[in-house]
Amino acid sequence: MATINRNYRKLAAGYLFPEIGRRTRAFQQANPEAVMRRLGIGNTTEALSPTVIAGLERGVRKLADVRTYTGYGDEQGNGELRAALSAFYARGGVTVNPDDIFVSDGAKPDSSNIQSIFGVDNVVAIQDPAYPVYVDSNVISGRTGEMDEASGRYDRFVYMPCSEENGFFPAVPDGKVDLIYLCSPNNPTGAVATHDQLAQFVQYARNVGAVIIFDASYSEYISDPDLPKSIYEIEGADTCAIEINSFSKFAGFTGVRLGWTIVPEALAAEDSLPGEIRRMWLRRQTTFFNGASNIVQEGGLAVLSDEGLRECHQMIDYYMENAHIIREGLQSIGLTVYGGDNAPYLWLKTPNGMSSWDFFDKLLNETWVIGTPGSGFGPAGEGFFRLSAFGHREDVEAAVASIVERLQL
Amino acid sequence: MATINRNYRKLAAGYLFPEIGRRTRAFQQANPEAVMRRLGIGNTTEALSPTVIAGLERGVRKLADVRTYTGYGDEQGNGELRAALSAFYARGGVTVNPDDIFVSDGAKPDSSNIQSIFGVDNVVAIQDPAYPVYVDSNVISGRTGEMDEASGRYDRFVYMPCSEENGFFPAVPDGKVDLIYLCSPNNPTGAVATHDQLAQFVQYARNVGAVIIFDASYSEYISDPDLPKSIYEIEGADTCAIEINSFSKFAGFTGVRLGWTIVPEALAAEDSLPGEIRRMWLRRQTTFFNGASNIVQEGGLAVLSDEGLRECHQMIDYYMENAHIIREGLQSIGLTVYGGDNAPYLWLKTPNGMSSWDFFDKLLNETWVIGTPGSGFGPAGEGFFRLSAFGHREDVEAAVASIVERLQL
Repeated sequence: MATINRNYRKLAAGYLFPEIGRRTRAFQQANPEAVMRRLGIGNTTEALSPTVIAGLERGVRKLADVRTYTGYGDEQGNGELRAALSAFYARGGVTVNPDDIFVSDGAKPDSSNIQSIFGVDNVVAIQDPAYPVYVDSNVISGRTGEMDEASGRYDRFVYMPCSEENGFFPAVPDGKVDLIYLCSPNNPTGAVATHDQLAQFVQYARNVGAVIIFDASYSEYISDPDLPKSIYEIEGADTCAIEINSFSKFAGFTGVRLGWTIVPEALAAEDSLPGEIRRMWLRRQTTFFNGASNIVQEGGLAVLSDEGLRECHQMIDYYMENAHIIREGLQSIGLTVYGGDNAPYLWLKTPNGMSSWDFFDKLLNETWVIGTPGSGFGPAGEGFFRLSAFGHREDVEAAVASIVERLQL
Repeated sequence: MATINRNYRKLAAGYLFPEIGRRTRAFQQANPEAVMRRLGIGNTTEALSPTVIAGLERGVRKLADVRTYTGYGDEQGNGELRAALSAFYARGGVTVNPDDIFVSDGAKPDSSNIQSIFGVDNVVAIQDPAYPVYVDSNVISGRTGEMDEASGRYDRFVYMPCSEENGFFPAVPDGKVDLIYLCSPNNPTGAVATHDQLAQFVQYARNVGAVIIFDASYSEYISDPDLPKSIYEIEGADTCAIEINSFSKFAGFTGVRLGWTIVPEALAAEDSLPGEIRRMWLRRQTTFFNGASNIVQEGGLAVLSDEGLRECHQMIDYYMENAHIIREGLQSIGLTVYGGDNAPYLWLKTPNGMSSWDFFDKLLNETWVIGTPGSGFGPAGEGFFRLSAFGHREDVEAAVASIVERLQL
């Protein structure tokens, strides 16, 4: 008889967002007069810019004419789009060969699937807290044992705690690990790694032969010119790091679906031949994926035009103004808030040592505002709370006003 | 040190289409005057229909307005689209619960990823010849040993040969297998399973507790009302079969990217709890995937409208007329051709017992026509050759005329 992949049963049962939905619905049912205000989910809310809309429309129109119609596209993505991405990196002084760029349907598929080209025995290190997909994809693929209920940690994972003490960016692991997931700007903490911090990880990875999987999905939210937007700003990173990025938060493509991953030709593992890891990712993508939508890739090209970049940065500025409003409001009532400077996430320290879920309930009950409990991102997230800068200005202002007026501290 | 997933090295080195490209380029270089005519690749060529274009444009316009903008969509896909797919099955007398439908970015990702929710020890049976993705995804995931060079077969796979003798549809396996891949209408042979043939597989699967993965990507090419378009036309199939389908060949979405998979609540494996396999696929999709593009899903809705279906069937009729032209031409010079009645593929028996690759070279050299060697789809494809009905009419007619006039038999 067929049997199932039992690793699925190791996954923590109650996923974060369904539980938030459950508690929210229960509260709304008991309090029908309450006006709910979401400050929690990392989902874009503003319309796409005119230049990007024109690009997407061009993509559709091409399919209406037999002379411009296209079926299956280039295996790694539209060559023009890969050249534009390479040029985009070049603006930041980073050299990326278009042949090493793989266009995808987003950072989530890439960051979950990238582990599949590595051995199942590899030891995985993750930031704690972290985007749950890094953890779950490795649990499902068999790189962990069971989760310990008391600590909330999976056996065999190496956790790199991100705390107030280390500015929410970890030191390199003490022992030897094989795969290292780093996310900067970070989801959920909003922390951004400095050049020095990334250089230490690159040095470590080169010393022990580890591969860094660098999630740069929020890189366009960095406005501080001293902070690195790409791990390839670090010398030698092309031998030890894969970089994943996305148009989701950059251009409002959360529902449109477009991203890219860079697997450098120079990247090596213990047992890999020259260029083999890059070729494996190509083989993976051509076997398990059939390219991002041609319409959407045309939209991506529009994003990377001068006018598209200008408009997308206006949208980013809009969300970052939300972040400033949230932070100022929360600080005005004495709360401690991290992040939100070069990232669309704010990481709130719960008052009086409350647990993340207790604070969730308190915020919901007293202010009708819905946020995301930090413990949902890993054990070291306990005692913290994620707020997101994505939202319409009037909704963000109303949520902040409600917290300022009603939260009982 | 990080290590690679060494299963990748088990994959047959020379992939079919790159080798075709290599030989074609070499011929073109040596014969610059030759006008190449492709009858080989399963890629759509005709413009999208007006109703579908209007749907896609509607999808784009929604994103231009903050009141209709959407970010991340419903986890299983747009509810309206899933309801429309359920209604689409109902037209054929088949009941499919929208809750069991998972909208995706195409049949290739789904048919490659579906194996990941099953145990790595499961024994896999495939039709021989078969769409290479079924084989490769299981090789990469570790369900096979090495490939035997002499036979071209992977250790641990169960091959179900499709031959002239069995009308290119296999009998159920002799022994016990766990996962069974079936594709009907078949790529590459163009054979379509009858109701009785599918019923035997459903009966077998229920007897031994196997799960059937049924690829119905070409189902809309079936015009014979006696042939089943869905495996769920067979009583009891919901307990033992997953069905995968696509808008690629149905509506010309090869580059647009949209498909769907049905994992029934009633589906069971040896060790699964009630509904667990369906929930695992949901968990898989929500961890490794973030939905098909919202723009594209709007296009899918347009395909499923009355006018959209009418127009898409006109496109299918166009391709099927190509199939008839190819078949009549080849038969007129005495060649034996199968398929092409209810499928966009024709399966040509090579003349005089030539090998598939020898016939490829002969066709290229004598007629400048490029087809696909049957042996590229599995050892039992040796001695056959796949021709595809996708192409502009004038190109198909020119290719057939060239074969009829120039092929030396």
